[in-house]
Amino acid sequence: MLLGDLRRTHYSKDIEPEMDGDEVTVMGWVHEIRDLGGIIFVLLRDRDGLIQITAPSKKIEKDLFKSIRKLKKESVVAFGGTVQESGKAPGGFEIIPSFLKVLNISKQPLPLDPTEKVKAEIDTRLDARFLDLRKPSVSAIFKIKSRMLHSVRVFLEEQGFLEINTPKLVASATEGGTELFPITYFEREAFLGQSPQLYKQIMMSTGLDRVYEIAPIFRAEEHDTLRHLNEVISIDIEASFVDHEDVMKILENLVVRVIEDVNEHCTDALETLGRTLEVPETPFERLEYDEAVEMVNSKGVPMKHGEDLPRAAEKALGEIMDGYYFITSWPTAIKPFYVMPDEDDPERSHAFDLMYRDLEISSGAMRVHQHDLLVEKIKRQGLNPDSFESYLSAFEYGMPPHAGWGLGAERFNMTLTGLKNIRETVLFPRDRRRLTP
Amino acid sequence: MLLGDLRRTHYSKDIEPEMDGDEVTVMGWVHEIRDLGGIIFVLLRDRDGLIQITAPSKKIEKDLFKSIRKLKKESVVAFGGTVQESGKAPGGFEIIPSFLKVLNISKQPLPLDPTEKVKAEIDTRLDARFLDLRKPSVSAIFKIKSRMLHSVRVFLEEQGFLEINTPKLVASATEGGTELFPITYFEREAFLGQSPQLYKQIMMSTGLDRVYEIAPIFRAEEHDTLRHLNEVISIDIEASFVDHEDVMKILENLVVRVIEDVNEHCTDALETLGRTLEVPETPFERLEYDEAVEMVNSKGVPMKHGEDLPRAAEKALGEIMDGYYFITSWPTAIKPFYVMPDEDDPERSHAFDLMYRDLEISSGAMRVHQHDLLVEKIKRQGLNPDSFESYLSAFEYGMPPHAGWGLGAERFNMTLTGLKNIRETVLFPRDRRRLTP
Repeated sequence: MLLGDLRRTHYSKDIEPEMDGDEVTVMGWVHEIRDLGGIIFVLLRDRDGLIQITAPSKKIEKDLFKSIRKLKKESVVAFGGTVQESGKAPGGFEIIPSFLKVLNISKQPLPLDPTEKVKAEIDTRLDARFLDLRKPSVSAIFKIKSRMLHSVRVFLEEQGFLEINTPKLVASATEGGTELFPITYFEREAFLGQSPQLYKQIMMSTGLDRVYEIAPIFRAEEHDTLRHLNEVISIDIEASFVDHEDVMKILENLVVRVIEDVNEHCTDALETLGRTLEVPETPFERLEYDEAVEMVNSKGVPMKHGEDLPRAAEKALGEIMDGYYFITSWPTAIKPFYVMPDEDDPERSHAFDLMYRDLEISSGAMRVHQHDLLVEKIKRQGLNPDSFESYLSAFEYGMPPHAGWGLGAERFNMTLTGLKNIRETVLFPRDRRRLTP
Repeated sequence: MLLGDLRRTHYSKDIEPEMDGDEVTVMGWVHEIRDLGGIIFVLLRDRDGLIQITAPSKKIEKDLFKSIRKLKKESVVAFGGTVQESGKAPGGFEIIPSFLKVLNISKQPLPLDPTEKVKAEIDTRLDARFLDLRKPSVSAIFKIKSRMLHSVRVFLEEQGFLEINTPKLVASATEGGTELFPITYFEREAFLGQSPQLYKQIMMSTGLDRVYEIAPIFRAEEHDTLRHLNEVISIDIEASFVDHEDVMKILENLVVRVIEDVNEHCTDALETLGRTLEVPETPFERLEYDEAVEMVNSKGVPMKHGEDLPRAAEKALGEIMDGYYFITSWPTAIKPFYVMPDEDDPERSHAFDLMYRDLEISSGAMRVHQHDLLVEKIKRQGLNPDSFESYLSAFEYGMPPHAGWGLGAERFNMTLTGLKNIRETVLFPRDRRRLTP
């Protein structure tokens, strides 16, 4: 069962038919065994694919043949052997084994079939997530997510953004809102950050100019929907000396860049998911809030000017609008206090949402940078400026004009993978009912 | 006060004396004003440095001259003007202004002097962190931290590691330990993750082979030291089909790579901090635990074989050992249950720490991958295997041999920046006394 000095020489993807005759050591899981009596075929699975081990009783040692015959599905093994070209095997080659080392034995039966032959409910899948993730259609989601995050970082760093880490343990409500998880912090009460909003704004006052953070946020939302979780990854940026239009451009260019990168680097994962991603054209369509409300009404969904889009309204929009689009010029009254009102029409604001069909994936705005206006807006929303003391003081000593957005990593991933349930885009999702594994 | 359509055309670093005669718009903070009567010099500060604005009363409009005279330190302004070569000014150029727009006015006096002329205590600095961060010697730390994290990710991705996100809201103690912050999770109790340890191990059972995560961890440690905080960023890796020696090599190569990258990309920041970083040679020195204890004793610090290194022992080692080094072969009894015992001497383990002088910056090990041994070790540490049900089940259905480590991002940053107080390496640190800003 111990690894000892044995090491893998090749992953499945590294072996080619041209290596006919080469000695290799491969490691992975027993995906399938077909025992035809005089010959046994083992499909070995590693991160990138399958390798056929072909064991003819006449060509290999008796003890080795016996050990292969005893293998159990999903056990972890190392095989040493010789590569042999084979048109019928995956990748065009097979391995004639010279040794086998069993590294761990899998109990039988398995709580979930990782070969995708039997479909399982999402809860069964999440309970046995380690087996669920052995399916290529599931690991593909996380290969795309990893690439997406990588691509976001590279893009933002090229644009002069500096990565920051802001605290997740906070003394009071980020936006004065509800939906906070309380923590016992030694003898005091504290909360889990529901957004890095106030911190990234404080950072604008430091002169670091452009910052980004990719980190978990926590929301004590009671919703049980396909689009909400209580812990998600938020991609946040904030930039100085720019307005909402500037950061909307950054956002749409980022979406394009991620799609290009995923297309280039995740071809196998996309194919596994049966997805083809079209690179959207920029600028994305911009719909003013008022237009959006009219569209919603035109679909027979009742909704008044001045209210936030109910789910039915998002769905109605999703029937009309395809791909990514912005909703702009939101009513000031329904957006948070830090959103800049339109100077020509203060009832409207410089806030925007980025939508993908019926799904909101990002919210952003030009922010209020004037201390007195900010205090006034905090009060107008029924909040107490005293609870925002350390935030507000950053506005008194030289806060530049600034703008930014937050982009939900999982929701963005849903637009790439085509998944409808946000739980599928998180390794170990957290919702009202689920805290394990 | 509004930005309107005005945009910066150049950062300070983008302007060169050769641009003599060019029209530019620069934006930033009023760093210094020298009013000589007939001529006013303003030093404007942006992310990358200083720009001298030279305003001779005879050459510029009267109203503009008056507005410049009224400027207050640390106010946020935009200047338009003409570049003029000037040997005496920073960067070899000055700007003769044609317009000024005040974007925000700073209150006077400032709670902290951002020009570094007056030294302030750490608590004063952290209370006014947004001003503290305007000092080049402080922003340098975070420019290095951002580059360090970037470099870590690029290196790990080159090595085939996939980025993952594991939950920070957990149902029970990660390592069965104390030091957990309790959360009210709807009607239940939950905890904040003190380490992604169990999750990254579960990931080894998925076949994703090599994973990494850079994310906050939370420890309810009561220590008030220069090396501990209650929220820090942990860089975690876990890899399958490898042992402790393999991941130690990854770790030392990563340290080398980060230092090379910081040397290449953070020359200004290093210079500001007065640091020169020597690229360490690999392999790093490996000290067995027993040797380390003897060294400690040789320095007159009493300590028994079998106990963890007390602070005095680390200090004694720091006097003997320079740079980065490993301590290996730790006693099994004082390491967590998931650490693999040495097969030839089960009292010793395949655990290691990476030290920098007297500072532990990383801990890692080859892990136990055998289910029954793991259950036995959990029991032997007085813990209940039932609390580890979802973790343990991943070991029953094909867990490969694996190894990994966790590297403290802030402590690693301390070795790069030479700082002695971990609080200086965190934008908004959290300790027993501090929850704001």
